[in-house]
Amino acid sequence: MIEKVNLREKFALFADRWSPKIAGEVNDTYVKLVKLAGEFVWHKHEAEDEMFLVVKGRLTIKLRDGEVNLDEGEFVIIPRGVEHLPVADEEAHVLLFEPKSVLNTGDVVNERTVADLERV
Amino acid sequence: MIEKVNLREKFALFADRWSPKIAGEVNDTYVKLVKLAGEFVWHKHEAEDEMFLVVKGRLTIKLRDGEVNLDEGEFVIIPRGVEHLPVADEEAHVLLFEPKSVLNTGDVVNERTVADLERV
Repeated sequence: MIEKVNLREKFALFADRWSPKIAGEVNDTYVKLVKLAGEFVWHKHEAEDEMFLVVKGRLTIKLRDGEVNLDEGEFVIIPRGVEHLPVADEEAHVLLFEPKSVLNTGDVVNERTVADLERV
Repeated sequence: MIEKVNLREKFALFADRWSPKIAGEVNDTYVKLVKLAGEFVWHKHEAEDEMFLVVKGRLTIKLRDGEVNLDEGEFVIIPRGVEHLPVADEEAHVLLFEPKSVLNTGDVVNERTVADLERV
């Protein structure tokens, strides 16, 4: 059974932040939905590029040598190995594309780490 | 240099239809933008899942046993091996997420096949 996903409806199903939910699988990649607000932790993914597409709100990705400011309908791809810090002044709804192997906090493991992702 | 992509701006840069443009690379996957109108050709991708996210307009993906109707902000993942036929009554702007190995017409090669993709 092939079913479509409505992003707005899916985001309405959860309220917790910084906890990516799996919304689809494309080959070795997960499509994840996440609500972000405030500041995350500096981290990098040694072996995986990561894509952030803003569905609602605004998201800043701080880099060691600058930052990328994303509005709705904008995406950025953070290459493997690049340290980054997602920050959202107000709640942002973000679609992530990343390999199934990715851990949200990358090379850092702390209280923000979510190892077992729920599906939405 | 890490640069963001604004979907609306990118779609404004080209007018040709059924000719996916590469807008980003995430690991072994391309993010492609394509304008669709009318009917494509029935095809399948033997080894690759394919994701369609509608950015503007409406898109129907016909399947041999049904169809999926996508509005803006909706996506569907067509699993490998599943025959499908994209149809858009009016022009639709679609983000595709698929392995770099994917040929647009899958197992069919004809005048709709685009082997060398441009970047946008």
